[in-house]
Amino acid sequence: MKTVYFRDYRKTDDDGYNLYCLFNALQGQSGIKVIFDKDEYEIYPDYCSERNLFVSNHGWNGPKRMAVLIEDMQDVELDFSGSVLRVHGAMIHIGILKSSNITVKNLVLENPQTQIMHTKVVAHGENYIDLLKMQGKEQFHMRHSELVTDYMDGISFNVWIHQEYEAATEEFRGDFPLGINICDEKIEDLGNDMMRLYNVKRFPPIGNIIILNATRRLAAGVFCENSSNILCQNVTIHSCMGMGFAAQICENITLSNFNTLKHDGRYYTANADATHFVSCSGKVIVENCTFECQLDDALNIHGMYTKVVRKANNELFVKEMHEAAKGIRIFRVGDRIQILDPVSLIPYTEKTITEIEYINSDLIRLAVAEDTDDVIVGDSAENISYTAELVFRNNIVRHNRARGILIASKGKTVIEDCLFISPGVCVQFEANGEYWYESGGVNDVTIRNNTFERCGYFYKEYPLINCVPRRAVAEGKYFHKKISVYGNKFIVKDGSVKLAHFDNAEKIIFKDNIVTENDGKEPFVELYQVADAELQADVKTVSL
Amino acid sequence: MKTVYFRDYRKTDDDGYNLYCLFNALQGQSGIKVIFDKDEYEIYPDYCSERNLFVSNHGWNGPKRMAVLIEDMQDVELDFSGSVLRVHGAMIHIGILKSSNITVKNLVLENPQTQIMHTKVVAHGENYIDLLKMQGKEQFHMRHSELVTDYMDGISFNVWIHQEYEAATEEFRGDFPLGINICDEKIEDLGNDMMRLYNVKRFPPIGNIIILNATRRLAAGVFCENSSNILCQNVTIHSCMGMGFAAQICENITLSNFNTLKHDGRYYTANADATHFVSCSGKVIVENCTFECQLDDALNIHGMYTKVVRKANNELFVKEMHEAAKGIRIFRVGDRIQILDPVSLIPYTEKTITEIEYINSDLIRLAVAEDTDDVIVGDSAENISYTAELVFRNNIVRHNRARGILIASKGKTVIEDCLFISPGVCVQFEANGEYWYESGGVNDVTIRNNTFERCGYFYKEYPLINCVPRRAVAEGKYFHKKISVYGNKFIVKDGSVKLAHFDNAEKIIFKDNIVTENDGKEPFVELYQVADAELQADVKTVSL
Repeated sequence: MKTVYFRDYRKTDDDGYNLYCLFNALQGQSGIKVIFDKDEYEIYPDYCSERNLFVSNHGWNGPKRMAVLIEDMQDVELDFSGSVLRVHGAMIHIGILKSSNITVKNLVLENPQTQIMHTKVVAHGENYIDLLKMQGKEQFHMRHSELVTDYMDGISFNVWIHQEYEAATEEFRGDFPLGINICDEKIEDLGNDMMRLYNVKRFPPIGNIIILNATRRLAAGVFCENSSNILCQNVTIHSCMGMGFAAQICENITLSNFNTLKHDGRYYTANADATHFVSCSGKVIVENCTFECQLDDALNIHGMYTKVVRKANNELFVKEMHEAAKGIRIFRVGDRIQILDPVSLIPYTEKTITEIEYINSDLIRLAVAEDTDDVIVGDSAENISYTAELVFRNNIVRHNRARGILIASKGKTVIEDCLFISPGVCVQFEANGEYWYESGGVNDVTIRNNTFERCGYFYKEYPLINCVPRRAVAEGKYFHKKISVYGNKFIVKDGSVKLAHFDNAEKIIFKDNIVTENDGKEPFVELYQVADAELQADVKTVSL
Repeated sequence: MKTVYFRDYRKTDDDGYNLYCLFNALQGQSGIKVIFDKDEYEIYPDYCSERNLFVSNHGWNGPKRMAVLIEDMQDVELDFSGSVLRVHGAMIHIGILKSSNITVKNLVLENPQTQIMHTKVVAHGENYIDLLKMQGKEQFHMRHSELVTDYMDGISFNVWIHQEYEAATEEFRGDFPLGINICDEKIEDLGNDMMRLYNVKRFPPIGNIIILNATRRLAAGVFCENSSNILCQNVTIHSCMGMGFAAQICENITLSNFNTLKHDGRYYTANADATHFVSCSGKVIVENCTFECQLDDALNIHGMYTKVVRKANNELFVKEMHEAAKGIRIFRVGDRIQILDPVSLIPYTEKTITEIEYINSDLIRLAVAEDTDDVIVGDSAENISYTAELVFRNNIVRHNRARGILIASKGKTVIEDCLFISPGVCVQFEANGEYWYESGGVNDVTIRNNTFERCGYFYKEYPLINCVPRRAVAEGKYFHKKISVYGNKFIVKDGSVKLAHFDNAEKIIFKDNIVTENDGKEPFVELYQVADAELQADVKTVSL
């Protein structure tokens, strides 16, 4: 293993270019250890690498800059020695493309301008609220009585969501806390960093934090595609424009002590999920991490449903449907696909791919070995040849918007030894063939030895473990196979007492869990369309 | 030459897909004649070809769909037999990439939705004006009292310019005729297709046409790159989202009876230049064409200045500067580049490229044979190895916004037998190293036997032939070499009497031109920084 020192490549005043030179020199090589001196590296996009990328669940496809680009490399270790990589602009911090055996470690990622604005509630009026801008780095301005970002690549973005955090506890207090779409109402600049929002319908307490959010997921922190055996260790994301870690069509990924952590007076970390895995295979291990205050889930793992839009003899035309998930090349010759009703998501036939033609970034012609008479145009197709096992172990998940983790992977899944302090659902089994087109059902999930502390503290009606109901079910068929929940501790005080909603599953085990501090309300587990359930006697069960 | 009939490929109900199948089957082939039945082909983007493109002077780089894609082909003729190719959405009608000896003929191009709205002035108020929407196809809506396009690829665009046409004469009546930036002021929907615009500063006559323009050049009509020997014959563009014909890094192009023509009650044709040539070589012939009512020039031919942003020994880092002109790969090993002051545009040194590294879509490292001690960082670089000859012959240019034609090509240039009925400048010699970065000076231009009829009818103070002055000149050095203007007819009645402004040129000939119907004001020719001039005696000359 050859050792290379980044200091030997810091020949210009532009570390973006220095990084470019280093990784351009290393492109295609194997067996390299790159060591960085501990420093704060300020990276501007001017001299950085660029590729045309389609980043799943981000959208905004096309040319993307990257501070670090590892491409066509094998057996590489990047040791940043605890450095900060601070990018300025819509850039991916680290891109890993068509590479294997890649380790990235000891690194902090930041982006000072991520299309959000932190504000503090300072006064209530008849129908307005006054907000104090807490930071200046977000670069918003007022236009037609609307708050918009400064132009970025020729486009100015409006505030489309907002969230509340409680000042004292730093806990999440919900989406749309002002009860309005901010972008539809009038905002007035009062000077001295003060703004007045009109037609407010809800009035969060004075002192609470309102985050005005114009995020458009223009770049991820770490992005991996068509790569295998990736390890990110001791990596902390303070801020980035999209997801903290996004991997698509990768095999074997380990994130260890990979964190989204608040910093510098902010209440927000990543602008989307902390970690996200699309059409991955092999084993995904996420352990010893802390995920806090990102805009979306701590983890989301799923495949992609495509929609059958046309068929011919031995041919299916499938379309990648969600506008933020196009251009992801999820099919390989030999893959098996299931065809399923987009509502019930129960498959009714399988095909084998013999040929693939990418017509454009969302439309794909698949030649299949079998005839296609039984395929209904308009139904969904799922590639079942990619399945990832998941271990989500010894992690802390707290105070982020959205859910704790989203599980939609057919591989064996273990969630253990974690602490969840979530405002709503902690573990969600989600899949959707009509809007998100994220697939699919689970086969074997174990949730054990976790602590759920005050979970659902904001969304008190939500189940902590939730199988999202389908709009339709099929008699005697189940979307999920087996989900086991045992040895966990539920500290339900001041949270939701709906411990779980199991739905559309063949086998449910909910045993040996400890439920404490129930606040007088009786904790319970809900069941619907479950074929077989082993349930502990001391927890109430409601069958719907 | 093999003949292929499109009708044999119309196997599905989607002509976008049928076109895709045909040209996908032909990709890489030579010696093909493709015949289309005369028809109106409706093309939706769903099944069309896509490439990541950087279209010069358009911007919005990334994945672009094309109804017809000719790629890696030689000796191909497409005969559309007078058909209409009507695309729906942000699509290029015809893309020609890495091909040679390509003929496209007998075709009409349309796009019903091109981010513009035709309106008619129906009433004046104290500070407002009432406009009647003339068409419904433009799909604008009101948002925060602002007129914006419906969402397209996730973005909604505002009205950033507007133009006036006189109803009776259909003549252009200027940019920003309401005296405001429409996007900064309030618009009210009055129902019944009526809108009220407030804070209007000018009041165009009732009955005149106001075109509200949210165009962002998302696609060209015909786009050619890295191709040679292209002929477009009998092609008419009624509407498209960007330029009618855009070619970059191509050699030998002929447009014959290639027109931008009004249609269907519209006053507008292409949303940008009718024809545009960037870093082309060989011979560009544009003849027997009519260009009317497009948003920008009838023709613009130029190279690209890049900015030297860094240098090292035998290395220059140059940047493509204009945000709508990035990713155009204009350099080849062996090319000669000139370095010049960005204000005077007078070159002071030349280098020879020995190696090229495209760092990203706007930054390029050029290794050069010579040392770089004499290069000043911040100055401009021009590739002088690409020069195109231009023949612009027997064309009609009328009533478009902007100029008639823009000439910035070092090759021999002839403009002859044309009729110009232009609201302002007819022939402009333009180049700019500070904002547009379009290069360069001309060497040998002949303007002969043209008729300039009532030119400058709206911009009466402008010269009809204009060398745009540089902010600085260099003693004894000239940006342009020779410009000859002879045998032309200037019918100046109701137009500008400033026939020409010659500036920064070595040799000017202005002889044997006929000037008629001068309305009592005396026509004249203006000279500044001209080394040598042969001028006809019967036209007044003003030396500045």
